[in-house]
Amino acid sequence: MRATWIEAPGQISVTEVPDPTIEKPTDAIVRVVAGCICGSDLWPYRGENDVTPGTIGHECVGVIEEVGSEVRDFTTGDFVIVPFDHCDNTCAHCRAGMQSGCVNLGFTASGQAEFSKVNFADGSLVKTEGMPDGAMIPALLTLSDVMATGWHAAVTAGVTKGSTAVVVGDGAVGLCGVLAARTLGAERIIALSRHEPRQAVARQFGATDIVAERGKEATAAVMELTGGVGADAVLECVGTNDSFRTAFRVARPGATVGMVGVPHGVELPLQSMFGRNVALAGGMAPVRKYLPELLDLVTSGEIDPSPVFDATLPLADVAEGYRRMDQREAIKVLIQP
Amino acid sequence: MRATWIEAPGQISVTEVPDPTIEKPTDAIVRVVAGCICGSDLWPYRGENDVTPGTIGHECVGVIEEVGSEVRDFTTGDFVIVPFDHCDNTCAHCRAGMQSGCVNLGFTASGQAEFSKVNFADGSLVKTEGMPDGAMIPALLTLSDVMATGWHAAVTAGVTKGSTAVVVGDGAVGLCGVLAARTLGAERIIALSRHEPRQAVARQFGATDIVAERGKEATAAVMELTGGVGADAVLECVGTNDSFRTAFRVARPGATVGMVGVPHGVELPLQSMFGRNVALAGGMAPVRKYLPELLDLVTSGEIDPSPVFDATLPLADVAEGYRRMDQREAIKVLIQP
Repeated sequence: MRATWIEAPGQISVTEVPDPTIEKPTDAIVRVVAGCICGSDLWPYRGENDVTPGTIGHECVGVIEEVGSEVRDFTTGDFVIVPFDHCDNTCAHCRAGMQSGCVNLGFTASGQAEFSKVNFADGSLVKTEGMPDGAMIPALLTLSDVMATGWHAAVTAGVTKGSTAVVVGDGAVGLCGVLAARTLGAERIIALSRHEPRQAVARQFGATDIVAERGKEATAAVMELTGGVGADAVLECVGTNDSFRTAFRVARPGATVGMVGVPHGVELPLQSMFGRNVALAGGMAPVRKYLPELLDLVTSGEIDPSPVFDATLPLADVAEGYRRMDQREAIKVLIQP
Repeated sequence: MRATWIEAPGQISVTEVPDPTIEKPTDAIVRVVAGCICGSDLWPYRGENDVTPGTIGHECVGVIEEVGSEVRDFTTGDFVIVPFDHCDNTCAHCRAGMQSGCVNLGFTASGQAEFSKVNFADGSLVKTEGMPDGAMIPALLTLSDVMATGWHAAVTAGVTKGSTAVVVGDGAVGLCGVLAARTLGAERIIALSRHEPRQAVARQFGATDIVAERGKEATAAVMELTGGVGADAVLECVGTNDSFRTAFRVARPGATVGMVGVPHGVELPLQSMFGRNVALAGGMAPVRKYLPELLDLVTSGEIDPSPVFDATLPLADVAEGYRRMDQREAIKVLIQP
């Protein structure tokens, strides 16, 4: 099959690789209908993570092509959302609602390709009722990672009805965090964003205020907006030391920072967290946990996260997609195999 | 008045100091009926914190001696619990239930003395109905700090009915954490304790299992006790790097570590927290928040935290009390002025 390949930082190409195959009776193979590029794919692209040459891409939706002999709930032709993190959905951690801690945790390895393998298909996948309308594909695709991850940020930050939320990060995850905070009932949603196109999406998703400043100026702006109180819930959707610092500074005493940006070189302000009772929660999103609820919200039209995609490219042009996202010319690029 | 004075590490004495006086109309002066020595008083005593010569002791109960002109809810003769952290109980943080983040935060400065001043008496204090029986004084005294702090650990760790809790630390706070976890409905409570007298109190307070090992062996023991799953809630009641490390290692994916031991030289395992979704919450306890509920539990006889006191000394012998606690000859020493 044709798949996106990363050879080294900056070196993305589409190459021919062997089709994924059923290796365990619980596996399924999905023919990818739509994949996309994730902000976290830029870490190796930029050389900020070590690169092991191989296929890349962990977000996709598609149609079941083949299932292993023990897969009961899915069959060839089903349209499925593929969570980036696969789980058996039966172990003690899954049963407790922390599927990203599954003892059989697996990951999508070729989301920007023609086919992708799913481990523990019965545990991991959720299907739509029949084939979805093409116009709904982008929204469904966000459920494989960014919308579920933004949702996890809002849930773990403790967003409640009437609360004030601050969202640090205006990438696709941060924007989905805004949408999640609105859906969970936040009354005031302050989005930290310096980029006009992202500010527009943030407003569309429910941000009531935009703070374009950074660092101490951003903290001062949030404090002014909240009458000196700070935020009840803070969604950390970046993962850098600067973004964490801002997240903790804008949190009011007793607030929680819900983190979903993979931390890179972060030093936590533990003494201040202790003195101010600011908690830190979150981590890798248990996508499968949220999927049924999020699928309902999307299919009922209650939420539409699709505006995070501002470009669509054929698989052949995936390298151009990386370039655009790296240069911030695009928020998130949808890839059509 | 006679008050406990710390001059330098290891140098504790009882000296004559000026009586505290009403400085603001919201102040109150309490005649101390009982005070005590806190595990955190040992940090300066051992030279692990910088020492500013002065009075020491932040836990006491007593009788109102005098109130400022704006104090409405208390009058001379009322028996009161004095939270170690004073608050106005009206600011935005207090109203949100985080009184330890009060904009008018204050602290008890002479709990091991004849008198102690309370800032914002109306906000800080809670009184009993009439004069309590002498036998109940020790239990009431724990509410000024250790029982409220152990409660905060259990609440912020997310102890729920039927859950499995691990308590790291067998000081008075850790033991109160066991009692809190039991009261909040934990089904299984694993106390990490190497000292036989403390193990006995832990069992009395509701610990179902005692782990006497430390470090990796403690983690292995907890994992075996929990069938490889780990704890739903972890109460960190020490504050050292080793204790934090153990706390995070015994936490299951999705669990929360509720910290109440002031962190000293702690490095948090952020990557593992992210990957395993283990949250960190807690901090300085909002004592006033919990006082009404805890006072009810104590006066109704539902909980009796008084066994954390295993020695009572007159104020004149307070230095001996520090020596005993430092040498682990006593868990917690009650001081009678």
